[in-house]
Amino acid sequence: MGMTMSEKILAKASGQESVKAGDIVWVNVDIAMMHDLLGPWLVDGGFRRLGGKLFDKEKVVVVSDHCTPPATVQQADILKFTRDWSRQQDLPYYYEFEGPCHQVIVEHGHVRPGRLILGTDSHTCMAGGLGAFATGIGSTEMIGVLLTGETWLKVPETIKVVWDGKIPHGVYAKDLVLKTIKDLGHAGATYQTIEFSGSAITDLSMDERLVLSNMAVEAGAKTGLIEPDEKVVEFLRSKGVTDEIDMVSSDPDASYIRTLHYNASELEPQVACPHEVDNVHPVSAVEGKAVDQVYLGSCTNGRISDLRIAAQILKGKKISKNIRCLVVPASQHIWMQANKEGILDILTEAGCIVNMASCGACGGFTSGVIGAGEVVMSSSNRNFRGRMGSAKGEVYLGSPASVAATAIEGKIADPRKYLLKEVM
Amino acid sequence: MGMTMSEKILAKASGQESVKAGDIVWVNVDIAMMHDLLGPWLVDGGFRRLGGKLFDKEKVVVVSDHCTPPATVQQADILKFTRDWSRQQDLPYYYEFEGPCHQVIVEHGHVRPGRLILGTDSHTCMAGGLGAFATGIGSTEMIGVLLTGETWLKVPETIKVVWDGKIPHGVYAKDLVLKTIKDLGHAGATYQTIEFSGSAITDLSMDERLVLSNMAVEAGAKTGLIEPDEKVVEFLRSKGVTDEIDMVSSDPDASYIRTLHYNASELEPQVACPHEVDNVHPVSAVEGKAVDQVYLGSCTNGRISDLRIAAQILKGKKISKNIRCLVVPASQHIWMQANKEGILDILTEAGCIVNMASCGACGGFTSGVIGAGEVVMSSSNRNFRGRMGSAKGEVYLGSPASVAATAIEGKIADPRKYLLKEVM
Repeated sequence: MGMTMSEKILAKASGQESVKAGDIVWVNVDIAMMHDLLGPWLVDGGFRRLGGKLFDKEKVVVVSDHCTPPATVQQADILKFTRDWSRQQDLPYYYEFEGPCHQVIVEHGHVRPGRLILGTDSHTCMAGGLGAFATGIGSTEMIGVLLTGETWLKVPETIKVVWDGKIPHGVYAKDLVLKTIKDLGHAGATYQTIEFSGSAITDLSMDERLVLSNMAVEAGAKTGLIEPDEKVVEFLRSKGVTDEIDMVSSDPDASYIRTLHYNASELEPQVACPHEVDNVHPVSAVEGKAVDQVYLGSCTNGRISDLRIAAQILKGKKISKNIRCLVVPASQHIWMQANKEGILDILTEAGCIVNMASCGACGGFTSGVIGAGEVVMSSSNRNFRGRMGSAKGEVYLGSPASVAATAIEGKIADPRKYLLKEVM
Repeated sequence: MGMTMSEKILAKASGQESVKAGDIVWVNVDIAMMHDLLGPWLVDGGFRRLGGKLFDKEKVVVVSDHCTPPATVQQADILKFTRDWSRQQDLPYYYEFEGPCHQVIVEHGHVRPGRLILGTDSHTCMAGGLGAFATGIGSTEMIGVLLTGETWLKVPETIKVVWDGKIPHGVYAKDLVLKTIKDLGHAGATYQTIEFSGSAITDLSMDERLVLSNMAVEAGAKTGLIEPDEKVVEFLRSKGVTDEIDMVSSDPDASYIRTLHYNASELEPQVACPHEVDNVHPVSAVEGKAVDQVYLGSCTNGRISDLRIAAQILKGKKISKNIRCLVVPASQHIWMQANKEGILDILTEAGCIVNMASCGACGGFTSGVIGAGEVVMSSSNRNFRGRMGSAKGEVYLGSPASVAATAIEGKIADPRKYLLKEVM
């Protein structure tokens, strides 16, 4: 019997030849990641009481992203604690003011195929887009990992999600994953791995693949995996990674708990409506809904390809006077790249406001939190009550293209009409 | 007996031929300005109880700047209230996400020589740099102004501050005003007008003049005036102002309560040390003090000329690894201009983080609030305990040049060494 990708990675991590879904395995962690809000500030007490010595500082990565820029004294204190702790531990990999951790660890080459990555954030699963088994753990559990480099996991069953066909113009990875989550339900993949495959997935850029893996947890999944290919290798080489790369893939006879088949060519842009991420409808069903704020950013959809799409739609146009459009690139690196490409000029000429890379308003922390009665169209990953601020606000989720089109109209809009010219 | 500028403006505003310091006058207000934090949200109840009709909506300007971007649900709710109120009142001049009100009303041509401008913010005095009598009032007092367009004022005595001589390389308006405040004391000009004059003042650009008037209130002054000249006229014409401009100036035989004379050519860069704005020392006395954060921005010193100076110093260099350097242009207009000039590229290449224009960390609201034990070198205007966040933090104030030099060293630094090359 063959193994799935996630079985293979956990077999390797546990030093066994093979494992199968349902096994409880003791694993060695390749990367232990913490961010400021759920990191040193919370783990320090227990960590010290149990010895206070890191298992391997080369494998511990800390990223301050939730409290950057600090909006309150408490956030500032947490940020300072995180920075000071990382210095005291002499961590070689501490990043701050660079953007959300999930993007930062990809950019710095910490994420590699076949690695086991545990982080104190639910969207740690994003690293699965490069073929790493990556998942979120609690801060208390992280204490044990920091001290020993080990933990236990139950090997998840795997749901295979196959997207074949050519993705139509105006449709993006975000639309694919929203449709998938709609069908699975927000708890439909609980403690399971989602493995995305098919020709539509292979066609995706690395930027786009990360959207799928990022949102796997929105169906409850432990992680969201995509087989690494030459695009991943090329990316890692560009980041200076010279080590051999583990081109982990599922065996043809691997066992899946469930398989979903889709034809991407039939998909139209999708929108997740309040207040659940699986309350997904085609954009045609929600077009015209007035919004107060448009948010283009987050670790889900604030990458350079996302900003390029938005710029393509907004170039030479003006956003609606009734809204504000906040742009928050997924990293400082992307911010700078976008600026070099003239994208930030295009977006600000259109009336958008550009902020520094941070978790910002996506998590309701700062830089665009919404008030009671306000409606947001966002390219981020969550829309439960209160996620972006007031529990009396409403969050709609869509692709960067849908978000940009919505910015122009001040109402939820189908991006395809703004991209039509290019097709014809 | 001649009149000072401030007497002349208040005579005109009160419909009298002449007034003198100490007179209580009933005045017509030319511009009533409110911002989000001390505006509609606070005045609405009383305003409605007393009739709820604006005296002249063309003369009421509302700028949302303290709660943009909202960092908390409360800020978001205040922002929404402000926006909704301004729409209900059908205000022609409501601005949001454009930056601090004092800069925004200058850019939009609301500030003109000879006008009486009252705003619900202490730094309203900045408009004095263009020759307007501008001062802060409380929100309760604003209710009366909104309803009637009138209020009463005591005509202030005037302190004349003369800066003659050529300002040395590496010394800026911020250094002049810090030295002035040091000598006057933080309450030394309470309920008095400061009138800045002399050849060094005439030489200043309009950007730089606004630094002086902005900080007049830091000595307790009611307003800080500079005689309008051709630079002011040129600026207003560039903003589309076609009306006749009131070139108000003090009479040669006007009466001053006090006169201070300075020779600018002898001045070195100045730094205001914690925790009072008049605790001012030459940079040479505080050089080497380690900082955690550098803040380049605010309505005091976030204008294009400030960003140009910082870019000149930081071009091709890297900021210290021990600090973060936050850049917050004084308006969205300036953000865009700076980007077109390549300044934001230079600053981010050096390691700075650029945020949207807002009151941000200057007032401890968002986007760079400091924690306990943290030290900031800032180009803003206030450094009392807790101003930028934690009461256990420390704020040093200096010119944008001093701030940029400090960013390089991670310690308070004399900017002149980084500008030396140009001199030689």
